[in-house]
Amino acid sequence: MKKNYLLAPGPVQAPSEVLLSMAKPLIHHRTAQFEEKFAKVQKLLKELFMTQRPVITFASSGTGAMEAAIVNCHSAADEVLIVRGGKFGERWGEISEAYGLKPVYIDIKWGGGLNVEDVENALKSNPNIKSVMMQYSETSTAAMHDVEKTAQIVSKTNALLIVDAISALGVVPLKSDDWKIDVIVGGSQKSLMLPPGLSFLWFSERAEEKMKSANLPKYYFNAQAELKALKKNTTAYTPAITLIDGLYTSLMMMKEYGWQNLYDKNKKLMKAIHAGLDALNIKLFSSSPSVSVTAGVVPEGIDGERLVNDLKEIYGVTIAGGQDEVKGKIFRVGTLGYVDSSDIVVFFAALEGCLKKQNYSFEWGVGVGAAEEILYGENS
Amino acid sequence: MKKNYLLAPGPVQAPSEVLLSMAKPLIHHRTAQFEEKFAKVQKLLKELFMTQRPVITFASSGTGAMEAAIVNCHSAADEVLIVRGGKFGERWGEISEAYGLKPVYIDIKWGGGLNVEDVENALKSNPNIKSVMMQYSETSTAAMHDVEKTAQIVSKTNALLIVDAISALGVVPLKSDDWKIDVIVGGSQKSLMLPPGLSFLWFSERAEEKMKSANLPKYYFNAQAELKALKKNTTAYTPAITLIDGLYTSLMMMKEYGWQNLYDKNKKLMKAIHAGLDALNIKLFSSSPSVSVTAGVVPEGIDGERLVNDLKEIYGVTIAGGQDEVKGKIFRVGTLGYVDSSDIVVFFAALEGCLKKQNYSFEWGVGVGAAEEILYGENS
Repeated sequence: MKKNYLLAPGPVQAPSEVLLSMAKPLIHHRTAQFEEKFAKVQKLLKELFMTQRPVITFASSGTGAMEAAIVNCHSAADEVLIVRGGKFGERWGEISEAYGLKPVYIDIKWGGGLNVEDVENALKSNPNIKSVMMQYSETSTAAMHDVEKTAQIVSKTNALLIVDAISALGVVPLKSDDWKIDVIVGGSQKSLMLPPGLSFLWFSERAEEKMKSANLPKYYFNAQAELKALKKNTTAYTPAITLIDGLYTSLMMMKEYGWQNLYDKNKKLMKAIHAGLDALNIKLFSSSPSVSVTAGVVPEGIDGERLVNDLKEIYGVTIAGGQDEVKGKIFRVGTLGYVDSSDIVVFFAALEGCLKKQNYSFEWGVGVGAAEEILYGENS
Repeated sequence: MKKNYLLAPGPVQAPSEVLLSMAKPLIHHRTAQFEEKFAKVQKLLKELFMTQRPVITFASSGTGAMEAAIVNCHSAADEVLIVRGGKFGERWGEISEAYGLKPVYIDIKWGGGLNVEDVENALKSNPNIKSVMMQYSETSTAAMHDVEKTAQIVSKTNALLIVDAISALGVVPLKSDDWKIDVIVGGSQKSLMLPPGLSFLWFSERAEEKMKSANLPKYYFNAQAELKALKKNTTAYTPAITLIDGLYTSLMMMKEYGWQNLYDKNKKLMKAIHAGLDALNIKLFSSSPSVSVTAGVVPEGIDGERLVNDLKEIYGVTIAGGQDEVKGKIFRVGTLGYVDSSDIVVFFAALEGCLKKQNYSFEWGVGVGAAEEILYGENS
């Protein structure tokens, strides 16, 4: 009978409406019925991506679309520039190396934001670089990087800007067409309020042109094959039919709520988490905090792994701990998708319970109260 | 995308597990498959009612089982004693009068608890009284009456004790066999975490004996017909098949959680609500507070109807206002069934938001904090 609150930075809570739309009897995908639904999904995805261009949908996790971005844009031994400030920056590097590319890294101290000039300088000193890969929101460190400014720089060069927006898409504005980004990768289990299993690939005209000469081996993640299928409102290979149904429902819910309202809501949740943590004397880990996920630094004297475990086991609240070098040192709370004010309140009450169990000193309600003031107060 | 928190004193939240068990393909009820399930439900209902005797299930709202209790136990123009301290006490009277019985009333000021001696005295001065009807928990006033003590008195007389336990069953212990109660009425939309549509009727051997000579007209609510059907693990008329499926799931969840744990949880939620209201300087309406529902007195200067409305419209939190003479003067929060600590926290955060909007003076988080201390503190 215990209630569960999924407040990790992905996967996130899926609304009943979405889950129920995926529980309808399965239809076949090579039918007009599927194609009509998929055409509607396409229109909505274009709104989400703020674009006039097509958005490819793969049946894969987000990593699949990261691989798709790389294999469709590069040829053997291409030099690439990778912004590496966490697990997902590292992943750009790992995929690139798996395909024999030659990465140059901009290493950022975990938690830090990208200094855009570093990209400019790296591109100047390495004129052969074919692409720049970065995260919009780096989930492992809860840092957000300035994609718009980076695009202004990269678009003036011959390099493509490839953005992993998996945890930022639908959380903050992402003007695919206007910002001169070249490739964007998305996933279903973040702001789209779906289970994992779908990924998205968007690219600019410039990227499409360059893809023609890209010779890295590919089959499943072939962007040209998918573009061709999209013209017939379908996918090249068997789509994840139920997830597409769920995607339609979630995009309709988001559209109805209003895209700007969604961005505003997420920002408010972030501010509320910041205020609540501050009231509890807990510092933010990132100097360039993400709107999608907030990382708090585990206070002196508190066992961080126990904290995350107690939240789950005692209070049913799932958040994420730190990975690798920050294991046990930070905790991460998602503020995206279906997460709303009431979840933040539940999180802080449970956090206060866990902190008291470890004899952390504060007054009951001080964290919740500070969050409440942002969420429910005059300016909310 | 707004989340809804159903915290009324019924209907209450139904867990997904229960709702999904009711979404399975419909089966026919005149089959071994249904009878097997219904036999299992019977066993679980006996645990809930703490009895060795059968529990009748009607497809009706709780009021139907109240009517069943009356028509099966009485003959034309019988004198009956009715404890009337709220809407549901009044209902005992209305049904009795509709069938031509002669009620004598013990009127209790709304919010008050029953003085058991009043029952003793009324029975002494009216020796012809055939039954005493009362509520265990009077939902309209959030008062709880002492059924155990009342049964000690009534069982020494010739009168039957008929208890409406609709909102108390599964919330607090109810020892049907041991307490010498004669008739108990229950419903599905309270602690059983089900949608409305099922009601329950239990009676003692003594009541069964008296029923034989009861001549009030009845057809659908015929206890004898249902007892006969129960022996074949079915119902006399078409059962609400899906609700029976849901009932099985909810009873299994309750049993797994542990009956005593359930009673303890509800009591803790009640204490937390009391503490939170107290911290916000809000008085309890009832002098004999129910564990199932708490009524707070709307403070001076606060518009009570707006409060209940804002909770729902702005924060998605559904509670109940006052009815009839206390309309706008009290608000009522259910603490039964699937409601848990996190809901109480959400309620108080939203309540604080609503009170601030009406310029009520307090510090953000003070209500939540006081509730948290009970819910998550050392003694929780």
